[in-house]
Amino acid sequence: MTGMQDILFPADPATRAIARELYGHARDLPLISPHGHVDPAILAQDSPFPDPARLIISPDHYLTRMLLSQGIPPGELGVKRLDGGPVETDPRKIWRTFTDNWHLFRGTPSRLWLEKTLTEVFGITTPMGFDVYDELAEKLEQPAYRPRALFQKFNLEVLATTESPLDSLASHAKLAEEGWGKRVITTFRPDDVVDMDWIGWADRVARLGEVSDCDTSTFTGYLEALRKRRRFFIEHGATCSDHGHPTAQIAPAEDAAAIFQRALRGQVSEREGETFRAHMLHEFARMSLEDGLVMQLHPGSVRNHNRFLHRTYGRDTGGDIPQRTEYTAALKPLLDAYGHDPRLRIVVYTLDEYTYTRELAPLAGGYPSLFLGAPWWFLDAPEALRRWREAVTETAGFYNTAGFVDDTRAYCSIPVRHDVARRIDAGFLARLVAEHRLGLDEAAETMADLAYHLPKRIFKV
Amino acid sequence: MTGMQDILFPADPATRAIARELYGHARDLPLISPHGHVDPAILAQDSPFPDPARLIISPDHYLTRMLLSQGIPPGELGVKRLDGGPVETDPRKIWRTFTDNWHLFRGTPSRLWLEKTLTEVFGITTPMGFDVYDELAEKLEQPAYRPRALFQKFNLEVLATTESPLDSLASHAKLAEEGWGKRVITTFRPDDVVDMDWIGWADRVARLGEVSDCDTSTFTGYLEALRKRRRFFIEHGATCSDHGHPTAQIAPAEDAAAIFQRALRGQVSEREGETFRAHMLHEFARMSLEDGLVMQLHPGSVRNHNRFLHRTYGRDTGGDIPQRTEYTAALKPLLDAYGHDPRLRIVVYTLDEYTYTRELAPLAGGYPSLFLGAPWWFLDAPEALRRWREAVTETAGFYNTAGFVDDTRAYCSIPVRHDVARRIDAGFLARLVAEHRLGLDEAAETMADLAYHLPKRIFKV
Amino acid sequence: MTGMQDILFPADPATRAIARELYGHARDLPLISPHGHVDPAILAQDSPFPDPARLIISPDHYLTRMLLSQGIPPGELGVKRLDGGPVETDPRKIWRTFTDNWHLFRGTPSRLWLEKTLTEVFGITTPMGFDVYDELAEKLEQPAYRPRALFQKFNLEVLATTESPLDSLASHAKLAEEGWGKRVITTFRPDDVVDMDWIGWADRVARLGEVSDCDTSTFTGYLEALRKRRRFFIEHGATCSDHGHPTAQIAPAEDAAAIFQRALRGQVSEREGETFRAHMLHEFARMSLEDGLVMQLHPGSVRNHNRFLHRTYGRDTGGDIPQRTEYTAALKPLLDAYGHDPRLRIVVYTLDEYTYTRELAPLAGGYPSLFLGAPWWFLDAPEALRRWREAVTETAGFYNTAGFVDDTRAYCSIPVRHDVARRIDAGFLARLVAEHRLGLDEAAETMADLAYHLPKRIFKV
Repeated sequence: MTGMQDILFPADPATRAIARELYGHARDLPLISPHGHVDPAILAQDSPFPDPARLIISPDHYLTRMLLSQGIPPGELGVKRLDGGPVETDPRKIWRTFTDNWHLFRGTPSRLWLEKTLTEVFGITTPMGFDVYDELAEKLEQPAYRPRALFQKFNLEVLATTESPLDSLASHAKLAEEGWGKRVITTFRPDDVVDMDWIGWADRVARLGEVSDCDTSTFTGYLEALRKRRRFFIEHGATCSDHGHPTAQIAPAEDAAAIFQRALRGQVSEREGETFRAHMLHEFARMSLEDGLVMQLHPGSVRNHNRFLHRTYGRDTGGDIPQRTEYTAALKPLLDAYGHDPRLRIVVYTLDEYTYTRELAPLAGGYPSLFLGAPWWFLDAPEALRRWREAVTETAGFYNTAGFVDDTRAYCSIPVRHDVARRIDAGFLARLVAEHRLGLDEAAETMADLAYHLPKRIFKV
Repeated sequence: MTGMQDILFPADPATRAIARELYGHARDLPLISPHGHVDPAILAQDSPFPDPARLIISPDHYLTRMLLSQGIPPGELGVKRLDGGPVETDPRKIWRTFTDNWHLFRGTPSRLWLEKTLTEVFGITTPMGFDVYDELAEKLEQPAYRPRALFQKFNLEVLATTESPLDSLASHAKLAEEGWGKRVITTFRPDDVVDMDWIGWADRVARLGEVSDCDTSTFTGYLEALRKRRRFFIEHGATCSDHGHPTAQIAPAEDAAAIFQRALRGQVSEREGETFRAHMLHEFARMSLEDGLVMQLHPGSVRNHNRFLHRTYGRDTGGDIPQRTEYTAALKPLLDAYGHDPRLRIVVYTLDEYTYTRELAPLAGGYPSLFLGAPWWFLDAPEALRRWREAVTETAGFYNTAGFVDDTRAYCSIPVRHDVARRIDAGFLARLVAEHRLGLDEAAETMADLAYHLPKRIFKV
Repeated sequence: MTGMQDILFPADPATRAIARELYGHARDLPLISPHGHVDPAILAQDSPFPDPARLIISPDHYLTRMLLSQGIPPGELGVKRLDGGPVETDPRKIWRTFTDNWHLFRGTPSRLWLEKTLTEVFGITTPMGFDVYDELAEKLEQPAYRPRALFQKFNLEVLATTESPLDSLASHAKLAEEGWGKRVITTFRPDDVVDMDWIGWADRVARLGEVSDCDTSTFTGYLEALRKRRRFFIEHGATCSDHGHPTAQIAPAEDAAAIFQRALRGQVSEREGETFRAHMLHEFARMSLEDGLVMQLHPGSVRNHNRFLHRTYGRDTGGDIPQRTEYTAALKPLLDAYGHDPRLRIVVYTLDEYTYTRELAPLAGGYPSLFLGAPWWFLDAPEALRRWREAVTETAGFYNTAGFVDDTRAYCSIPVRHDVARRIDAGFLARLVAEHRLGLDEAAETMADLAYHLPKRIFKV
């Protein structure tokens, strides 16, 4: 498509020219990816990627979800079933099914990411369709398209992956041995040993005891185990923890130890589970005061809302749905305790944009510990990114926001996701300049700060 | 006004040119009106319309409501009072009162609809004011402005009206006899026999028994009666049911039969009424599996909020106010049960746009049974229609939306309402093209799909 | 910066030209400031302003809050501490600290207000920075920059300040004596004697008895005292009351007198406090029927959310955070009682923009007593003002909105705040004209109505 160099810039010619210039100040800056879900084994092993369908379609639940919404189950796109039911394994058939439904993605970020990935990462100029398969398959066999070579090509400075405290971090250890330790780092994500509603919690707590050599049959031992694992993660590069809870509740609970004991015996209500999660966020904040991990909060998702998906395909297959999320009251206990403590840094995300001007921007604009994370999931798209800047900047400014996170499993899409965010920021800043609300030189400096300097500083990478 | 051919298109010249071109792909497509409140007797009888005031002002509570908000009661605009109080009956006086307050409508869709109706339907070029009355009155006497002639002129392919299960559908029967059966169809709207809070419910349930020849003194008989009426409605063209509840709650209730019995004796609480409504939606979904009616959900309105209006003028006179509406939890029981059942199709509307990106787009983008209805009431206006596309497209795409519904009683305004929606879609698509996010040919195809092919398919008309 | 005459106008050249023309119809109209927090002593005494830091920085919690969000406590900007801790007193050092952090304000209204104040009020063309200090200090010593001279320069027609019923209104009395009584008026704000959660409530109720010569140890006497103080305020120019509650609840409570008695003995729960506030709004509405004060409701703020700020610096230092606010149910008791009473006028504001299309516009568009106040605090900025017009106009029109209020303590910023609002309105109207939705002459008339005629009429000033 001609004009791709202006993609996502505002149509007004004067504003577009400014956007183009501002974008030029960020385009070549290295990528900081402080939060995501790439499998570190990809980089540790540096093997060639599999076929196009298994690389691009089957693992991307943005894609499988859209086809599901039109009645095409994930199995037809190669997603493994828990029940052993039939799953398409022919990558060409998967590619065909997908490209036959390509029109469903008009106007979506998936389309944008995929088209730009094909063009900019793989140099494919054929319009998206069945024929792209062979062209892409051929590229994937070339050394230039192996993971580490792409890492260089992407101009990635640092990539954070996300692991459970139970993880051995073997891939990160291998990467460190081979000189990649500063570039691929881990993130401490303890949800699976904190969330009592998640089936198998007690077993995982027992395993936490094993991997940490602590007695996790007591609450004290459990906390000690978590502290030790944080240190272990920090040794493997971690600068952040990450917490994905249904709500933003944070509050110390006097009966946390008692709930913990009851939960080990399987005697715990949903409400106690929520109390415990809220308490643990407070504990993790206290641990952060000591070890310096930046806390990332990702509240507001109802996990496994789609029962059919959950039962047939398991967790993390596109069946989560956001719910209304409250911050003003929920964060108060934490902010009362540590909102002004220079040792604590919290980056808060949301799936509920209807809190931006009412809660999140005022909170981030008033508490030194608090920063606003970029729009996340369902909201990590051009229109939503633009609305976010329009909503939060007037109260929180630019410098209480934490920069873009791609939050993705889709390794090859990382550069284009960052590029989309940079273009939206350029367009937003360009409008401020065009409306005489900001000088061009200041806008240029802000552009570089948002793209690179702010996330580097805030996430301590 | 010059430039009316560009009305509602974005001002940027390049984007406007694209919008104009895209709109050209939809302008002449037939209108699909799958949900509305036109009185079918208008078409069955095909009589000339009454005077301009009784045609345009008195029955349109968008208009009477705005004047009420400035202290002019609906009676001065010819709206009948329940209490026998004074009501203006001189249509010229009504027209005068209305046009004297025409400035109140600046920036509103009412103004847009009315001006375009006068110009495009009636060919009146005099600016809106008192003088328009006579010009319009004269037109209304001409055969070319009778209902059926207008139906042709409007290029209406199908018009769905909305009736209670108690309705005899006599007008539809007459229309069918005269060859209009495929063009004017009914919709099954059972609220008045489901909503126990609505005064007279038990009497209407008794009448339901009579019209269906079932024993509605038992819950089983009541369900059977509803099933029979659905079949009767389907014989009169119905392809959809419609449900306007205060909330989106859908959940089977074990005590539904017991609540039903207590309600017949007048012993039922508001909470039980809500439980019963939620249960009945579940029942209707099960009936849809069998008979194929598309379910339309219109939740979120507090009916008769305006006590003065309700007492003085009755229901449906502009006194309803929206309230916060929750979907993620409310729809889960239904989606768990039938969200992936190809026999079920649900179109969900909202009066609460602060659920678009958080709940409605993720739900419609994840469940094959669910489609997003167009912005409805208070939100059926240019800015709101545009925000809707901007909000939902990134997650749900275009193809999980169900196309525009005019939802109107105001027969003569139908073509301009559709035209407004088509223009807003053209403007939105044009921006995607101008920002190089969509090809012009794809946008043209999408334009025609949104205007015609999607609603035709989804509403089965 | 060149092009400042076009600041905030849309970038599209055709739309900008229309905006410029429309703005011309409002630019020179007098300012109506019906709600704000300027200290009337400033005008009563008409002394020269203090140094630039104490004039502009220390008292503006929009400014101190932003620096606090980056870890710089208000004390370093000259804000007095309750605990006697160290506070910077050197105005040049304060100015330095502030200008060193000027980049934090990019994209915020504070920056816009401050830059325009310097340029347009003080004629300073040096870009904001340390050097501005001396230039500004020199101006402040000139007679032309004394409060009353500025009042003329600002083209202020009327300025309403806001006082407690306990206030003697001495400044207003002095102003009246000197011929300024019509220009500087007071507003009756009884929160401190209504809100039982506010420490010292009982003592203030006792003082209310003293200043009104009523026995406020009984509820009847308390109501009588409030009635008398309202009359006293009206004698000092008041046309409005103002009520800043955490929620919008308004409902008569049978046990209000009993709660009052228990509260005097210190035996009252938070919930009873809320019941009492809701009851008192109903009482104040009844008083308005008699004395004609326009009621302003400012709900939705959690006062003193920031515990550190509250403890160290006291109330009103930037530590309030909005919370979700409900109107549809909350206002119903009042609207049932007096929503159609021509003697009552209510202007309702919000900190929760996620109620605009769902609740506030439908309510204001349906009840004659109700008007929508301008976006307030956190929302009194260009993007938010624009979103407000885009959201509410389609349902409520322009004529159910009450015009701009600056709501500020920062006297010198008043003209630029109004100018920003006028420019945003001009831009919004210009888009309607550019999209052929409104005639240019109507837009011009609307422009003047919004800027001047509407607030003058609605606030009775």
